[in-house]
Amino acid sequence: MAAAQLTPAHLSERHRPTLDQALEAIRTRAYWSPHPEHPKAYGENGSLSAADGLAAHKATLGSRFDLDQPGTDGWTGGEVSPYGPELGVEYPHVDVDVLLPAMRAGLGAWRDAGPETRALVCLEVLARVSARTHEFAHAVMHTSGQAFMMAFQAGGSHAQDRGLEAVAYAYAEQVRTPQEAEWSKPQGKRGPLDLRKTFTPVGRGIALLVGCNTFPTWNGYPGLFASLATGNAVLVKPHPRAVLPLALTVRIAREVLAEAGFDPNLVALAVERPGEGIAKALAVRPEIRIIDYTGSTEFGDWLETNARQAQVYTEKAGVNTIVVDSTDDYKGMLANLAFSLSLYSGQMCTTPQNLLVPRDGITTDAGPKTYDEVVTDLAAAVDALLGDDARANGLLGALVNPDVKARLEAAADLGEVALPSREVTNPDFPDAVVRTPLVVKLDGSKPDAEAVYMSECFGPVSFAVAVDSTADALELLRRTIREKGVMSVGAYTTSPEVERAVEEVCLEESAQLSLNLTGGVYVNQTAAFSDFHGSGGNPAANAVLCDSAFVANRFRVVEVRRPA
Amino acid sequence: MAAAQLTPAHLSERHRPTLDQALEAIRTRAYWSPHPEHPKAYGENGSLSAADGLAAHKATLGSRFDLDQPGTDGWTGGEVSPYGPELGVEYPHVDVDVLLPAMRAGLGAWRDAGPETRALVCLEVLARVSARTHEFAHAVMHTSGQAFMMAFQAGGSHAQDRGLEAVAYAYAEQVRTPQEAEWSKPQGKRGPLDLRKTFTPVGRGIALLVGCNTFPTWNGYPGLFASLATGNAVLVKPHPRAVLPLALTVRIAREVLAEAGFDPNLVALAVERPGEGIAKALAVRPEIRIIDYTGSTEFGDWLETNARQAQVYTEKAGVNTIVVDSTDDYKGMLANLAFSLSLYSGQMCTTPQNLLVPRDGITTDAGPKTYDEVVTDLAAAVDALLGDDARANGLLGALVNPDVKARLEAAADLGEVALPSREVTNPDFPDAVVRTPLVVKLDGSKPDAEAVYMSECFGPVSFAVAVDSTADALELLRRTIREKGVMSVGAYTTSPEVERAVEEVCLEESAQLSLNLTGGVYVNQTAAFSDFHGSGGNPAANAVLCDSAFVANRFRVVEVRRPA
Repeated sequence: MAAAQLTPAHLSERHRPTLDQALEAIRTRAYWSPHPEHPKAYGENGSLSAADGLAAHKATLGSRFDLDQPGTDGWTGGEVSPYGPELGVEYPHVDVDVLLPAMRAGLGAWRDAGPETRALVCLEVLARVSARTHEFAHAVMHTSGQAFMMAFQAGGSHAQDRGLEAVAYAYAEQVRTPQEAEWSKPQGKRGPLDLRKTFTPVGRGIALLVGCNTFPTWNGYPGLFASLATGNAVLVKPHPRAVLPLALTVRIAREVLAEAGFDPNLVALAVERPGEGIAKALAVRPEIRIIDYTGSTEFGDWLETNARQAQVYTEKAGVNTIVVDSTDDYKGMLANLAFSLSLYSGQMCTTPQNLLVPRDGITTDAGPKTYDEVVTDLAAAVDALLGDDARANGLLGALVNPDVKARLEAAADLGEVALPSREVTNPDFPDAVVRTPLVVKLDGSKPDAEAVYMSECFGPVSFAVAVDSTADALELLRRTIREKGVMSVGAYTTSPEVERAVEEVCLEESAQLSLNLTGGVYVNQTAAFSDFHGSGGNPAANAVLCDSAFVANRFRVVEVRRPA
Repeated sequence: MAAAQLTPAHLSERHRPTLDQALEAIRTRAYWSPHPEHPKAYGENGSLSAADGLAAHKATLGSRFDLDQPGTDGWTGGEVSPYGPELGVEYPHVDVDVLLPAMRAGLGAWRDAGPETRALVCLEVLARVSARTHEFAHAVMHTSGQAFMMAFQAGGSHAQDRGLEAVAYAYAEQVRTPQEAEWSKPQGKRGPLDLRKTFTPVGRGIALLVGCNTFPTWNGYPGLFASLATGNAVLVKPHPRAVLPLALTVRIAREVLAEAGFDPNLVALAVERPGEGIAKALAVRPEIRIIDYTGSTEFGDWLETNARQAQVYTEKAGVNTIVVDSTDDYKGMLANLAFSLSLYSGQMCTTPQNLLVPRDGITTDAGPKTYDEVVTDLAAAVDALLGDDARANGLLGALVNPDVKARLEAAADLGEVALPSREVTNPDFPDAVVRTPLVVKLDGSKPDAEAVYMSECFGPVSFAVAVDSTADALELLRRTIREKGVMSVGAYTTSPEVERAVEEVCLEESAQLSLNLTGGVYVNQTAAFSDFHGSGGNPAANAVLCDSAFVANRFRVVEVRRPA
């Protein structure tokens, strides 16, 4: 390897202040981000402008994405944008029997670098990703189907925030134990027993990141950076429909590692041939000691059951629920919910699915509203939000894959349709499948309805479930969390008693709760450094983005003691 | 429940300074303990004197140990001291279908008490246990077979240290996230988005502690107190041969909880009828969300595979190894090893089993020593240490159960006996089975020998394994750690290169290393607040006593956010 261009001193000067701010942010959980959300904030100080980002993206399309990885035995790739075009990018296919040993080769030097240098290298990776946010936005847009602005923010700056947050937690956790200690135990009249002790955080080995289709960076970065920062190598296995954003990330990480004097093979990419299904085979390899996964409950459960040699962190399906009891801002509530249902066509793991409304209606600042009125007014609010096609396209994005489209179409038969899904034309991308959310009315007391609303229906489908009372809603909420899991819970109430009761359910069943959101914050959004994404305490996920438990078991501390 | 006699203010005044010292100790890992090791330190300030402790112990023998637990459906118990006498104590047998729901009843109030009050309640429990250390010493002695002084220290003050350490980690981890945060996100010309957020640590539910025969308190307290301090209830399932020390602990915990105004059923005892084997049934109950286990690899693996609804923390078997390369204190090395092999008849999970010695011999300050000389001199050192029967009894204690005796007797046929095991008579307890350690010579290159030394042979049995070279020893060490796991590794060398090489093996394979111990610290001893017990990174254990990873996943943090 060439002499390091990125010395520890350079890295510290560039990034230590940011790391310190991140450490302070996770301690106070006040608002903080070093990654601008606005596209116009880019284009200076080495970051790509909108035009340059688009040009960089276009230059990648239809080309081979070489990474100079060991074990490359061919080329593969077949991403098709949810907006229509084929990306035409070919990625290296790897022989893991060659790649995995090569990934282990650099572990010793990476361990010896220590927690601070590892954190600063990760921050340099994130800084270079951030400088190319415009390029990443296109990559995320054309793999996930997110609208450009959302791809820019959720797939760009917010994903970078989540990565940085994971680095901060990883660093903090590794430096809780000192590097050295002098231990002197008094022995009365005899002299003390004296030992000199060293404590070294060591990674577990190779971590596997199994990426998802909808949020390749946002859901991928926490595990990637948590594992890397704690001294592991990371093999990135993207979803076959969403390779490009993670391939770009891997390339940048490899460049930074090499420039900092480390083995670039500490981060590598494994792309599968169509139908190859390499995640299962990789997941049970003895070299794989950590797995991060976002996706179906079925495969998440499979990983937890079978990848016994690894620490497995999963985010799976849930049945997110909103309890509607009462409100002093009926319009605000409806607008807020309409936005939550519409954003990215309901394809977020935090999008509300079940809206529990008492069948006798609710009290509001606009007078009492029956169940039917609430549902009708919500449908109208969605219509108003999405009435303009340009605005609708900007909010909805495109359906990520044909499965979602099929599920949406089938859902119209599940009950009385309160709000039909509408096709929206995207003038820039005529092949994009753009749909507005469907709202279906269900009677919560009917067993056949229960079978519907107690299953996750991923996509732009929500159920307005009529319940007997708010108490009934809370009991259903409790059962939903316990049996199916949730990533998010929302509630609207003006009653202190109901507020306490819904908080109690969430505390007892371990679910994150948003109360009375009527403005510009939505139940399906969580902010890094402040909000926890999931709870890790119900069936929807066994881990949280991001807390100490997410990082503390990715490394172990080896103690060496000797007489002083 | 009666009004609390132990108010938060009382608890804080009594114990907050101790908690703060413990927090500082785990940060610096310097020597610290609030629990005196010397029996004469007790007898004042409310603690039991030697005579009172013995009297209290005797008063318990032959009686019913009532705990006033819900669901008591009979009485059971059949402990026989490894020193001979039957204890004659009967414990409540419980109907878990009644007990488990009763244990959940107090969880809400325990959660609402918050991390500090929970920690201080735990410290009050530990303080009362500490005051009765003399009584506990007899209980541990007559269930584990430890000699009195070891039972007093390892089963008394050191176990209390490990419990306190777990409380400190649990407290620190829960208060990393603030209770509240104000979040204000700038929105340019529009006003900021403002949210008020609360964060509450919530326990997972009921934790199950599956106790062990040899160290009921030392190995039991970390999990018990970590779970309790993080807001869980704890069901204690002792080893049927070592109930009394944990029953005493449960009784004290229940008293303290009640006096502090909490439900005493947050801690309960489940003792099985002979052959009932309740651990398996309890371990897969949906109410059980955390399991701590010390014992056989077989049952530990069963728990990890089957108790999928729980976080499972296991300490299992290992093949502890000493690498002997060279020394500048030959006498000190032999004396140190002799002590390590003898202490508690080698029945510690950290006792060295395999001593790897180059067949061409080693260099020492007393000149070169052949393999045969090293083994002969070690045997002589053990003989010298244990030549006096009174001293031998004080070090060896008694064999904990007939399995260990059978294993020891069979081991004499496994190879050439370098040091035969000797029967020692205990004048105070003529029925005690007291044996000195057996050392067997094995040729490391022989496959049939490998089958012997690569399996754990728990008890006073060690193998002096002849290896081709120190490099060969390190390769065997690596393979042993990776395939079988270790709780402890020791090495003796005067060579900086060898020292670095053995450190590298331990760093790469995740094992705790003691170098060149020749004085009064032994490879099988670890001190709370400073030494890690196990690494959690090799097959001997998936957890460490004690680090953040040991506590961070015993609770989750529930966030509630609302417009500010």
